[in-house]
Amino acid sequence: MDTYRVGIAGATGYVGQRLIARLAGHPWFRLEALGASGRSAGRRYADAVRWALPGSIPDEAAALTVGACDEGTFRECDVVLSALDAAVAREVEPALVRAGLAVVSNSSAFRMSDDVPLVVPEVNADHVSGLRSRAGRGFLVTNPNCSATGLALALCPLHREFGVRRVVVATLQAVSGAGLDGPRALDLLDNVVPYIPNEEEKIEAELGKILGRASAGGFAPAPIVVSAHCHRVPTLEGHMEAVSVELGSDVPPEEAADAMRRFRGDVADLGLPSAPAPPLVLRDAPDRPQTRLDRDEGGGMTVVVGRVRRCPVLGLRLVVLSHNTVRGAAGGALLNAELLAAKGVLAKRALA
Amino acid sequence: MDTYRVGIAGATGYVGQRLIARLAGHPWFRLEALGASGRSAGRRYADAVRWALPGSIPDEAAALTVGACDEGTFRECDVVLSALDAAVAREVEPALVRAGLAVVSNSSAFRMSDDVPLVVPEVNADHVSGLRSRAGRGFLVTNPNCSATGLALALCPLHREFGVRRVVVATLQAVSGAGLDGPRALDLLDNVVPYIPNEEEKIEAELGKILGRASAGGFAPAPIVVSAHCHRVPTLEGHMEAVSVELGSDVPPEEAADAMRRFRGDVADLGLPSAPAPPLVLRDAPDRPQTRLDRDEGGGMTVVVGRVRRCPVLGLRLVVLSHNTVRGAAGGALLNAELLAAKGVLAKRALA
Amino acid sequence: MDTYRVGIAGATGYVGQRLIARLAGHPWFRLEALGASGRSAGRRYADAVRWALPGSIPDEAAALTVGACDEGTFRECDVVLSALDAAVAREVEPALVRAGLAVVSNSSAFRMSDDVPLVVPEVNADHVSGLRSRAGRGFLVTNPNCSATGLALALCPLHREFGVRRVVVATLQAVSGAGLDGPRALDLLDNVVPYIPNEEEKIEAELGKILGRASAGGFAPAPIVVSAHCHRVPTLEGHMEAVSVELGSDVPPEEAADAMRRFRGDVADLGLPSAPAPPLVLRDAPDRPQTRLDRDEGGGMTVVVGRVRRCPVLGLRLVVLSHNTVRGAAGGALLNAELLAAKGVLAKRALA
Amino acid sequence: MDTYRVGIAGATGYVGQRLIARLAGHPWFRLEALGASGRSAGRRYADAVRWALPGSIPDEAAALTVGACDEGTFRECDVVLSALDAAVAREVEPALVRAGLAVVSNSSAFRMSDDVPLVVPEVNADHVSGLRSRAGRGFLVTNPNCSATGLALALCPLHREFGVRRVVVATLQAVSGAGLDGPRALDLLDNVVPYIPNEEEKIEAELGKILGRASAGGFAPAPIVVSAHCHRVPTLEGHMEAVSVELGSDVPPEEAADAMRRFRGDVADLGLPSAPAPPLVLRDAPDRPQTRLDRDEGGGMTVVVGRVRRCPVLGLRLVVLSHNTVRGAAGGALLNAELLAAKGVLAKRALA
Repeated sequence: MDTYRVGIAGATGYVGQRLIARLAGHPWFRLEALGASGRSAGRRYADAVRWALPGSIPDEAAALTVGACDEGTFRECDVVLSALDAAVAREVEPALVRAGLAVVSNSSAFRMSDDVPLVVPEVNADHVSGLRSRAGRGFLVTNPNCSATGLALALCPLHREFGVRRVVVATLQAVSGAGLDGPRALDLLDNVVPYIPNEEEKIEAELGKILGRASAGGFAPAPIVVSAHCHRVPTLEGHMEAVSVELGSDVPPEEAADAMRRFRGDVADLGLPSAPAPPLVLRDAPDRPQTRLDRDEGGGMTVVVGRVRRCPVLGLRLVVLSHNTVRGAAGGALLNAELLAAKGVLAKRALA
Repeated sequence: MDTYRVGIAGATGYVGQRLIARLAGHPWFRLEALGASGRSAGRRYADAVRWALPGSIPDEAAALTVGACDEGTFRECDVVLSALDAAVAREVEPALVRAGLAVVSNSSAFRMSDDVPLVVPEVNADHVSGLRSRAGRGFLVTNPNCSATGLALALCPLHREFGVRRVVVATLQAVSGAGLDGPRALDLLDNVVPYIPNEEEKIEAELGKILGRASAGGFAPAPIVVSAHCHRVPTLEGHMEAVSVELGSDVPPEEAADAMRRFRGDVADLGLPSAPAPPLVLRDAPDRPQTRLDRDEGGGMTVVVGRVRRCPVLGLRLVVLSHNTVRGAAGGALLNAELLAAKGVLAKRALA
Repeated sequence: MDTYRVGIAGATGYVGQRLIARLAGHPWFRLEALGASGRSAGRRYADAVRWALPGSIPDEAAALTVGACDEGTFRECDVVLSALDAAVAREVEPALVRAGLAVVSNSSAFRMSDDVPLVVPEVNADHVSGLRSRAGRGFLVTNPNCSATGLALALCPLHREFGVRRVVVATLQAVSGAGLDGPRALDLLDNVVPYIPNEEEKIEAELGKILGRASAGGFAPAPIVVSAHCHRVPTLEGHMEAVSVELGSDVPPEEAADAMRRFRGDVADLGLPSAPAPPLVLRDAPDRPQTRLDRDEGGGMTVVVGRVRRCPVLGLRLVVLSHNTVRGAAGGALLNAELLAAKGVLAKRALA
Repeated sequence: MDTYRVGIAGATGYVGQRLIARLAGHPWFRLEALGASGRSAGRRYADAVRWALPGSIPDEAAALTVGACDEGTFRECDVVLSALDAAVAREVEPALVRAGLAVVSNSSAFRMSDDVPLVVPEVNADHVSGLRSRAGRGFLVTNPNCSATGLALALCPLHREFGVRRVVVATLQAVSGAGLDGPRALDLLDNVVPYIPNEEEKIEAELGKILGRASAGGFAPAPIVVSAHCHRVPTLEGHMEAVSVELGSDVPPEEAADAMRRFRGDVADLGLPSAPAPPLVLRDAPDRPQTRLDRDEGGGMTVVVGRVRRCPVLGLRLVVLSHNTVRGAAGGALLNAELLAAKGVLAKRALA
């Protein structure tokens, strides 16, 4: 496969940094352009960024000059990965699409729009099929909220085999989920904050769309009722979720676990570089998954499940762990871009 | 009120230390004797204990000689507060009771026994009424599991006014709950462990007994179905609980919050020194209660509630915080002892 | 003693909050006015502040209207406690002094000025004696950097008895030292940052001034050479300092420890409400002081010392712990204000 | 190079686990046998170990049966890597040597013995030259204490070029340094403990031996006076050290930094698989190295230095970071074994 030229919008943020780190050595994609806010534009990336990942800035990014998040910056890109905040994305992403760019966004701004697929490739790769006709013209694809991503992956095989009706989920979310401007150490050491603005709403809305069906006029959500309780805990990376779920019928835990163990997802044959095999791993030990020990499974792209057992109230319960800034953000967006490339939806743009 | 002489069984453990700290300056109770395992017996308390609370060991405890956890050690005590591990309590507590001692225990060993009250004074003070006839003879009273305590206090006014039917609760529990031999820093820094042995079973069983009725043959549990998901998080003190609850009818969140705000509990008139007024505090800020900021409310005896809101699945949801080693352990046991004293169930023993 | 009316400049910051908390119930001082930046001015304090201390805002502060940090806001105050950032203090404090106000500041802006005493009452109370002539007119008194405060208190008895010549100190500083805008959790969980801007310079400069002599033209610093290595560690409160010190002669550790144990400081007879007795506590256990266990000694005003032992390089070494936002900031400033009141330097202003 | 068969003594401990993880896929070494305490002997490794590293147990270790730490267990091994506690090592290691085994130990038991080299290959590879005559017979080689390792690597180029005379070092050490039985979370969250038993003594003694010369009768230590202040801080991996150093002459910081930057060490030409190139990395940013961001440099084998600047007391100061359980333990021992293999000191044993 030829190499696609990739731009990153929101390149100085934490998810932007993760994108840059994951593009280093990528077999299909090559970093072409970086866009950020006005404060950074015009500076060398290495000077503009407050690099927060272990190790050093990859060479191919360090010396690039950061541009504004506009058409000019990305005009030689075959795809733009967007790690913009929602408020900025709301303005920037439609402008990029209007300019004919393929935008693959981690932002929440347009996830619930009728004409925007909300995609976890293993779960609903078919949601992007309507885009084929737009190849070469602009379009937008999004990946879900970090907590919704792990939940959707874990529940997908249960939904396919048994039907998911109701879900109560409590999340224990890492600080990286709030990005470089997340909570102060003073506010989170020896502490739990039981509130993350808009997070519960996102999880509750997005799960149904991901597990639903692409339809003529948009996307028909699966009729799943979700109640989310979100917490910020003093961990660096990895969102844990305690899930109680009501299925369409009474399903013994072993049977549910088997369904998850068998799950291969919809893109196992596409050879997507970022796709883990398998997408779900089940741990047998009663005290797993643990945030620090399991978040990097499959390079952070595998969702780890454990403690599948009966729930006295809803029927089934389990623990889900996923890496919030990899699978739930940068890796998820990159996997979507890979999906689009493999499906022929990404066009290589003629050089200007 | 005269002073009661108090013994502590399990005095070197973390809850034992909390008991000693809370007895310093207590208006009704005076520390009389300390019992611990064979390793400590015969040593000065200051030499036997690995003191883990801020500051120094209270003088009245430091110089006491630790005895074995047997009748001999406590024979001049009017009441023995037990902070023993369950396995030890299973042997020791019945022996003390047979020796005629009043034992007020934090241990889980006998909480679910038919002849043992499981008491949170504000909630079910009447559960001890059957003991009056045993004053002067031995008996055992217990307080619930640390997480069950906070849950029972928060749900009590809802149960009384609307009836609680089903509960899904996810806990975020501090390391002190596991005592001095709790998890290693290596196992908990930057980590969450989604499992605490036997904890979910305790919460699920105890809530019904606490909210149930004392009856002729024992205690008739309230028919509440509970599903608990327990997590150990890197906090020092304070258990947070995310609760979804199904009531007997559809109750608007404001009405539920009002019921909790009005709650005064059953012992408001007894003047118990450790009883907070009120037992429940509601915080309005959307990001409260927080573990570190709210755990010490009312000296650690007040349960703090927040985020009372609709639950799309079960009807109502809220966040509960209680101090696990104060309200949920040492303070809870001490409050039970105070209740027994106020009710005249504690007899002052003749000096040997 | 009559009550002095106190204003707080920088009332919404973390040190400002500590000042408000410590003024609640103060026997000599009464909160009169609050000043903060333009963003807060005109709002109720409870609405303007992001309260970050456990518990609730004291009632006497919650309902006050925040003013600007100018003469108008504080015109009925007998003393203004300043918790302003250095950059703001550089402008505001001289203006308040010119308006005739007594300003007791925690800021670093003017600590090293020739006409400004840098005071730890137990160590150099006499440095304020030159101010008596200015009572009723404006003047400025400062307290040292949080790390310098603990160091000065611990070394004072050694300096007085043996002479301190050279000091190498490594600090392990809590995040609260950086205030509400301190490091992000993402930057400090499971991490140490070996750099705090300008901190090493402050410690190295201030120690000599504090331990020096007030002289005609200003303050003659003690000729002590200091090398400071500063680290931010993931603790909430409490700065630990590992100190190697070269004295004027070879002093056995026991003798040095005795000098510290005997130390009562220069204000033991003044009855200052915030002065701890004694100002230094020595712990014998080899693993003390510990940050969390010892920082609240004496309500956070006592400095705790341990591990006094030989240093193979400089002669003597020890560990020092002090509460950075109490003794090292709010409590230190308040103690200075109490000293001025006791010495008659604070005038009660006629009401406007 | 042929493959050497490796045994691990102390295989269930944290350093033992690190050794197993680093042997997976090693080009020269193959895991042959595992020894541990009596409790584990006879069990499958996967059943005996409390695995504490991220991810799963490597397959080649999981199914091995753990033996006792004796000659029988290791009789087909060409080298035994020892991760035993000092007390056990004191008995076991001499017995293994007497049985003719080459033992490469991380234990402190014999580091200071006259006939045992204490080796950091880049620094004093020549200290093993006396062992060549013993190839095929038993001998013991050790690596230094985790903190001494980083210190020795950072100071080596300074010592070679300018002579190191006196060192004051304060360490900020991660909890993994205490192994699986290290401090409890209850004792270290929001805390610093300024004491690690025997650690200061080890650092002070070992540095001179490492930087000294092998001589006829043993090892002549470099005449360096060291004062160490050791602290346990709430980090998982990575020991930071704040170092003040007095050199043989006045050396500008830039010159000292250049010496460290040029340092290649004594084994750059041997192609040792675990040897990082270069062994020292200097960071220019004023706030680096940081524990979490820099500990994994060079796979955890590179020592990262920063903040090289003047010390007002001793002349030069700097910050050193090294990964305590990789470079300072498992990786250091493995590198020593590689050195012995490359130098022909390791003999391949005939199969029994």
